[in-house]
Amino acid sequence: MDTLKVAVIGAGYWGPNLVRNFRSSPDWDLVAVCDLDAQRAARVIGDRSTVEVETDVAKLLQRDDIDAVAIATPARTHAELAIAASKAGKHVLVEKPLASTLEDARRMVQAAADNERVLMLDHTFCYTPAVRHIRELIAQGAIGDVLYVDSVRINLGLVQPDVNVFWDLAPHDLSILDFILPFGLEVGPVTATGADPLDTGRACVGHASLPLPGGGIASISVNWLSPTKIRSFVIGGSKSTLVWDDLNPMQRVALYDRGVDVARRPEDLAERKQVAVSYRMGDIHVPALRETEALGLMVAEYAAAIREGRPPLTDGHAGMRVLSLLHAIDESLATGRAVAPQREDAR
Amino acid sequence: MDTLKVAVIGAGYWGPNLVRNFRSSPDWDLVAVCDLDAQRAARVIGDRSTVEVETDVAKLLQRDDIDAVAIATPARTHAELAIAASKAGKHVLVEKPLASTLEDARRMVQAAADNERVLMLDHTFCYTPAVRHIRELIAQGAIGDVLYVDSVRINLGLVQPDVNVFWDLAPHDLSILDFILPFGLEVGPVTATGADPLDTGRACVGHASLPLPGGGIASISVNWLSPTKIRSFVIGGSKSTLVWDDLNPMQRVALYDRGVDVARRPEDLAERKQVAVSYRMGDIHVPALRETEALGLMVAEYAAAIREGRPPLTDGHAGMRVLSLLHAIDESLATGRAVAPQREDAR
Amino acid sequence: MDTLKVAVIGAGYWGPNLVRNFRSSPDWDLVAVCDLDAQRAARVIGDRSTVEVETDVAKLLQRDDIDAVAIATPARTHAELAIAASKAGKHVLVEKPLASTLEDARRMVQAAADNERVLMLDHTFCYTPAVRHIRELIAQGAIGDVLYVDSVRINLGLVQPDVNVFWDLAPHDLSILDFILPFGLEVGPVTATGADPLDTGRACVGHASLPLPGGGIASISVNWLSPTKIRSFVIGGSKSTLVWDDLNPMQRVALYDRGVDVARRPEDLAERKQVAVSYRMGDIHVPALRETEALGLMVAEYAAAIREGRPPLTDGHAGMRVLSLLHAIDESLATGRAVAPQREDAR
Amino acid sequence: MDTLKVAVIGAGYWGPNLVRNFRSSPDWDLVAVCDLDAQRAARVIGDRSTVEVETDVAKLLQRDDIDAVAIATPARTHAELAIAASKAGKHVLVEKPLASTLEDARRMVQAAADNERVLMLDHTFCYTPAVRHIRELIAQGAIGDVLYVDSVRINLGLVQPDVNVFWDLAPHDLSILDFILPFGLEVGPVTATGADPLDTGRACVGHASLPLPGGGIASISVNWLSPTKIRSFVIGGSKSTLVWDDLNPMQRVALYDRGVDVARRPEDLAERKQVAVSYRMGDIHVPALRETEALGLMVAEYAAAIREGRPPLTDGHAGMRVLSLLHAIDESLATGRAVAPQREDAR
Repeated sequence: MDTLKVAVIGAGYWGPNLVRNFRSSPDWDLVAVCDLDAQRAARVIGDRSTVEVETDVAKLLQRDDIDAVAIATPARTHAELAIAASKAGKHVLVEKPLASTLEDARRMVQAAADNERVLMLDHTFCYTPAVRHIRELIAQGAIGDVLYVDSVRINLGLVQPDVNVFWDLAPHDLSILDFILPFGLEVGPVTATGADPLDTGRACVGHASLPLPGGGIASISVNWLSPTKIRSFVIGGSKSTLVWDDLNPMQRVALYDRGVDVARRPEDLAERKQVAVSYRMGDIHVPALRETEALGLMVAEYAAAIREGRPPLTDGHAGMRVLSLLHAIDESLATGRAVAPQREDAR
Repeated sequence: MDTLKVAVIGAGYWGPNLVRNFRSSPDWDLVAVCDLDAQRAARVIGDRSTVEVETDVAKLLQRDDIDAVAIATPARTHAELAIAASKAGKHVLVEKPLASTLEDARRMVQAAADNERVLMLDHTFCYTPAVRHIRELIAQGAIGDVLYVDSVRINLGLVQPDVNVFWDLAPHDLSILDFILPFGLEVGPVTATGADPLDTGRACVGHASLPLPGGGIASISVNWLSPTKIRSFVIGGSKSTLVWDDLNPMQRVALYDRGVDVARRPEDLAERKQVAVSYRMGDIHVPALRETEALGLMVAEYAAAIREGRPPLTDGHAGMRVLSLLHAIDESLATGRAVAPQREDAR
Repeated sequence: MDTLKVAVIGAGYWGPNLVRNFRSSPDWDLVAVCDLDAQRAARVIGDRSTVEVETDVAKLLQRDDIDAVAIATPARTHAELAIAASKAGKHVLVEKPLASTLEDARRMVQAAADNERVLMLDHTFCYTPAVRHIRELIAQGAIGDVLYVDSVRINLGLVQPDVNVFWDLAPHDLSILDFILPFGLEVGPVTATGADPLDTGRACVGHASLPLPGGGIASISVNWLSPTKIRSFVIGGSKSTLVWDDLNPMQRVALYDRGVDVARRPEDLAERKQVAVSYRMGDIHVPALRETEALGLMVAEYAAAIREGRPPLTDGHAGMRVLSLLHAIDESLATGRAVAPQREDAR
Repeated sequence: MDTLKVAVIGAGYWGPNLVRNFRSSPDWDLVAVCDLDAQRAARVIGDRSTVEVETDVAKLLQRDDIDAVAIATPARTHAELAIAASKAGKHVLVEKPLASTLEDARRMVQAAADNERVLMLDHTFCYTPAVRHIRELIAQGAIGDVLYVDSVRINLGLVQPDVNVFWDLAPHDLSILDFILPFGLEVGPVTATGADPLDTGRACVGHASLPLPGGGIASISVNWLSPTKIRSFVIGGSKSTLVWDDLNPMQRVALYDRGVDVARRPEDLAERKQVAVSYRMGDIHVPALRETEALGLMVAEYAAAIREGRPPLTDGHAGMRVLSLLHAIDESLATGRAVAPQREDAR
């Protein structure tokens, strides 16, 4: 099987990670790194290497020896680059979020479809062994109905120059929810609150609540100002509860056979005191998971989707659903009201 | 110094804890335990004891050999019992929440004032060495401006027969905020979301956001359905950040000299990308705290307030502020809007 | 079923814990507390109680209304008190260690046997739900052959006036090993090292290695000088490995389906490089355990043994085996050699 | 400043880590990777690289364009390779342990000295920010006299084909002790115990006790069979106690202002009960440490030692002291006696 030839566009914050993973993948041959700043690109490539530096995207896209690109530039530039790449016959991987606007996102999806090229989102966490396992557990019914989700993603983060903390961090939580929940991101009106206590011009702390089908609720807490790092994701189910602590390598995922069972529900308000519940305090089970770098599995999926001519696990539509939620969160922040996310097919 | 004589009213869930602490306190002499169910009261007292069982509150309140009572009955009964006790010349300690309605609460405060008796709330957590220390640190300016507070209080809790999860658990968080913040519970309009995914007739999972004076935000997360127990309380400040993990006895409170400093703020929206921030990654300091049971310190404060003829640290007004927030949370849950808490002096 | 009547002898460090547990047990009626210091005994009993204070053991033992005693005095006084109690027809519970000398211990066991009374050791940890569960797992074969045991029991402890750190802390580890291992304390020659870096006149830090039947090894580490508290007990087995962390209430006991399998053993020394091993990296299983106070279960076992006329789970012979190991440890410390523990039946 | 040119000899387990760090260091230019297996060397180098593959060490050492080598081959081959490299005028970095025998080690040190070349040991942990900080704290007197050291280094490790668990893991502990203690590895007679419960032909579990000057004790616990990974290193001092937990990135090093003070020492044995101790329960301080890869700092030190013509921080003599302890441990294992380590200058 021949390796696929790829170029990475953007040698800034995330680009080096893509470079490293394409380089160490048996599926890929990294041909070039493209950045307006040639020195930055050269630094990422390192010495004694024949990987090429490019500074002109147009020229890069004209090369015949490149099958695919990976775009790691600021979100507002994604649409132009991705559409040009699709038109040039290249497969496209883009960093999250897909684009700045839903309109741009739709054009990117369309361009890839028109040119029969893969459009893939680097929703990195969906390629961790933990999230893959969680998705399977939910699909198998091991967790039961999803009653609540609590995701906390906080640390001392870079205050981003052009977006608030939701746009920086929540795409991770939203893409994971979209990937693992049986109903994906089909949630009700979103309520978001936030604060900018350092007066930076954008929310640096944020909380969002997403009503789930069936009466549950998902909560997302993001924060750039926290000195402690937390990556905690809890899924409370009617059968069991799953705790994913990504900073605990000995025990990233634990399934608790514990919960509340409702034996008798109240018939009406007058009877509401009559609810009868019982408590399960069962065992905890910690599945053995491989310790594999998610980006390595992500670039493997990129190659597999291209070779098999199929959409990748995290395709442009997933990217659009995440983007739609981000816009709903922003509108809720601005208006103080719950805001229903726009459906992908809405006009 | 003579011991004060006390009776505990209510031998249910919390009463035994009060009984144990009054018994082991040098300030108090436990005279009687009062409950409609004489056997339940007797069980709490135990064998070979001369502490008396009472089943009639009216009779209890007429006794001359009792200086004070502690009321550990359901919230809806607090007002009647406390007002009767105040009128009978007894000092009153009540469990949280103070009452079911703000109107009841006002009458309780008034009755204690009219009869010059102490009215104290058992806001237990305010008497932990951790919270006492946090209050001092904030007062001394060690934390700086409060940027955000994140409180998470979740575990497999008893689904209460007559209240939602906020009324059961959030009084702890609210009373702590009232106690430690320089501005107490003077917060902006409250946004609350919740869910009842088991269809029990009341919210079992809840999230509330409270805007703080100065642009910060406090977040409270409460949950009865969680198989894991979390008691985490983080105060992010402009100078340092405090993490209180009540389940980590080796290190309950830690002060992080870490955070974000804003060197230059954007002048206007066009300039918002120009924000310049720097990051402090300093040391962590863990103060030595005594391991003392909070209820022991609470009953000591009750005695001290009586002897010194002064309001206790957690008095009826603190109880009213907490109650007012609970009502605002309920209204936000019901309406989907942010709701300003009623001020104590409002009519 | 009538309650049994008990008196506690010794109101010092541990006595109050026994008093509390006898008081709250449905099996027992605490009649008296005996101490040379009447005020100390009275303080342990508390106010408004009809439990009696005794200061004369001889008088106490003559009382007809007492079935059993619990001895919580210094170890060197155990023999005289226990033998007198047995002769007076009382059942006896003694704190660990059983006695100071093996000769005293033998006399105590004999006196109880001669008078057909129960002699029980308060090997408290054997009554924790964790140790009970571990014993069952080993008996069922869930762990396989025991390859190694690592027990660490360190904290800032009271430097005892008359014994070294092994005599203070290691009885816990030794009594647990005796209780859970299929072969009990039938170990090979013991190697102990220790240090007295503060020049207090006795070892304050100690390490002991006990060869297990079958080629394994048990290691015990005890330390009075550590600012951190550790209670960790690991049993590595051929089938799985058990980790007991007594300070982690969410997860005291975990069973790891992980280990090393030896596919081919070397035939001789020349072939020793040929060993072929494989590694299992399976799941972790955390059994749900009751959170019950061990002392409560211990006093229940004391009552059950008396009523059923049978030896208790931790009887005088278990106490002698632990004592024999302590003497072997002391001798190894003094001589720098491995020392075989004296067998109980040796003369 | 010109970069130094280096070749890595050995592309097995550890070689790739050296390759990666030389490549990303501004001090070094990686010229070649040498291995008997050309394909293995090529795999380590990766595609699109001009780093050369060598299979003949003799040829490699004759090249003029190489200043230094790094030897990552089995220990028994170190002496021949290092001596040849020194004679060829190359600086030498070797993996631990320095050699198999003390005689080989002495010859290596002599060869480097005779040819005025650097001989450096890759005692990796000495280059972690944690160990550097610990060394400074001890040198400044922040810990006081060292009372005890407890090092636990266990995990599911590769059962090595030709050495026991001490030779595989204890060089880390020993090199750290040598680096941080004011008296280095000048310890008393070593007591070691071990077990081979799987009958593999070598100890897979081991414990060693090293008496420290001044009455303290260092304990090292190593284990290949543990399903859990522990990297814990505690230094108890007369002033404070340091806990280094290398698996806790939020808090690798913590300094506890806690301990035991002896107010009055016993004059003689008759008085030994008179010891008066007091307990300090002060604060915990967690210094901020850089998160830097140790190997990066190690290759920087290698370059600095060469440029400055000085011995590196971990030189051949440090390697010999560690080796001497390993031999003493082996002898204690074999004889069951405490064994004094051979001094470097002994013949």
